[in-house]
Amino acid sequence: MQDQTQHEQASPEVLKRIQDSFDRQGLMSHLGARMAHIAPGRVHILLPSRPEVTQQHGYFHAGATSAIADSAGGYAAFTLFPENTEVLTVEYKINLLAPAVGDHIEAVGTVLKSGRTLTVCQLEVFAVQDDRRKLVANGQQTLIRIDRPQSDQ
Amino acid sequence: MQDQTQHEQASPEVLKRIQDSFDRQGLMSHLGARMAHIAPGRVHILLPSRPEVTQQHGYFHAGATSAIADSAGGYAAFTLFPENTEVLTVEYKINLLAPAVGDHIEAVGTVLKSGRTLTVCQLEVFAVQDDRRKLVANGQQTLIRIDRPQSDQ
Amino acid sequence: MQDQTQHEQASPEVLKRIQDSFDRQGLMSHLGARMAHIAPGRVHILLPSRPEVTQQHGYFHAGATSAIADSAGGYAAFTLFPENTEVLTVEYKINLLAPAVGDHIEAVGTVLKSGRTLTVCQLEVFAVQDDRRKLVANGQQTLIRIDRPQSDQ
Amino acid sequence: MQDQTQHEQASPEVLKRIQDSFDRQGLMSHLGARMAHIAPGRVHILLPSRPEVTQQHGYFHAGATSAIADSAGGYAAFTLFPENTEVLTVEYKINLLAPAVGDHIEAVGTVLKSGRTLTVCQLEVFAVQDDRRKLVANGQQTLIRIDRPQSDQ
Repeated sequence: MQDQTQHEQASPEVLKRIQDSFDRQGLMSHLGARMAHIAPGRVHILLPSRPEVTQQHGYFHAGATSAIADSAGGYAAFTLFPENTEVLTVEYKINLLAPAVGDHIEAVGTVLKSGRTLTVCQLEVFAVQDDRRKLVANGQQTLIRIDRPQSDQ
Repeated sequence: MQDQTQHEQASPEVLKRIQDSFDRQGLMSHLGARMAHIAPGRVHILLPSRPEVTQQHGYFHAGATSAIADSAGGYAAFTLFPENTEVLTVEYKINLLAPAVGDHIEAVGTVLKSGRTLTVCQLEVFAVQDDRRKLVANGQQTLIRIDRPQSDQ
Repeated sequence: MQDQTQHEQASPEVLKRIQDSFDRQGLMSHLGARMAHIAPGRVHILLPSRPEVTQQHGYFHAGATSAIADSAGGYAAFTLFPENTEVLTVEYKINLLAPAVGDHIEAVGTVLKSGRTLTVCQLEVFAVQDDRRKLVANGQQTLIRIDRPQSDQ
Repeated sequence: MQDQTQHEQASPEVLKRIQDSFDRQGLMSHLGARMAHIAPGRVHILLPSRPEVTQQHGYFHAGATSAIADSAGGYAAFTLFPENTEVLTVEYKINLLAPAVGDHIEAVGTVLKSGRTLTVCQLEVFAVQDDRRKLVANGQQTLIRIDRPQSDQ
């Protein structure tokens, strides 16, 4: 879906629904993450460098990298869902390709396949330093669409 | 390795090496996570419930669940490494089996296979409420042993 | 579910349903694989060593190892499904822990979580030579229950 | 690496090294798979439809889909290795996105990151029927470069 979606902008209703949900994620604001772009089937989330998000060598912690990747994929799926639905992550797999060092990292979630029940997303995380942009993590995620958040999978 | 390791305690040198490394992980203290148990090939990490670690429905965020699971597996591998080595996560995959609700969650990383270069760990996360303990996430992780943290993979 | 299931045997109806399905899998008979044990939530599949299932060094090919692991997990899930349902693999992840050499390999699929729509299984593959049994692959799999095989996910 | 590699052809030495290795994979010829394209960092493998590679509904078995995907990624990594090295799959994860039905399936392995020890590949499998080409599986794979095939990981 990459070509069709990257220059588009989601509708105002979808933007609001996703921003509201993001604002309720305590973890995202606690980490200092913010929404950077919301298009149909694609969402970008930024996380600035801070001591609070590091691992023992001062790089971004894989847990922080994964957290924004997971949220980016979840919201990318959510952009294509009808109203009165919720999204839950079923599983994801992520490769940490290189140490994540930079001014900030940017996670990009892109829908690969959107089914009635399940959605599969590609996850990419880039480390950005000045005008250098390096792929530091790459993953794949499965999500489920549900009617109520408390549903069993 | 489960049977041999669960009642053992790591040596004082290993305990100190791991606690020192954990204390340098800005993300772990920022989330409020703490080491609960360190045995050869097995490490437990606890994360108490707080609004700062939630997703949009008030459950523990998959990113928080994954972050402590990833650290638990990394340190489980590290318990079996010789001195003057470092551990880096190559990749992991995690299934979110059920909403993570409770007083705290506890991640358990257990070494499945310890090789010269690569180590494979099992990751489990339990949600604990009073005396109820429920498996909420299950995963598998590959780690690499390196001599210096800045090494290429 | 490991403790409860390992000594049990599935009901005759389930045994027949699974054996019939297995017999329709052209790939399993082409590889020379056969059902070894069917219990509620756990299935074992054996694959004898033959030149037709090797990779370039003469070990069992990862594709053969994965194929019987995937089928073992799928049928383990299927043992817990009601009649008139089908099972499809959503995704799996597998670590090849050691070269697979031996008289035969044995895949064990075990249900970790059985939900209304999704089931998560643990996958293990052992290489067996005389009375030596070595874990050579370990994985995790997500499956979906559907009413008709041609359903969208 | 997608843009640089897709129109290139590997050197005659690399082509020969990979074709020789492929020809020693008993499983690939037993399934009826064949090399379709070998470029630096990218390899395509074709598998024609036959009853011997099906699952219980007559689709390509996930094990067959995975087997050629795993080999395509392994050889894509191998195109970038120096002489006197070998490649082993460490792990992979694959999503089965849609039933694999068609005249043949085609697996494409593409190197995402090539490190000194580890290589990460993207895996894609397409089902091809006449001039229709549909993505039916998508995955991610980690491989290790070793000097001798019998090495420990």
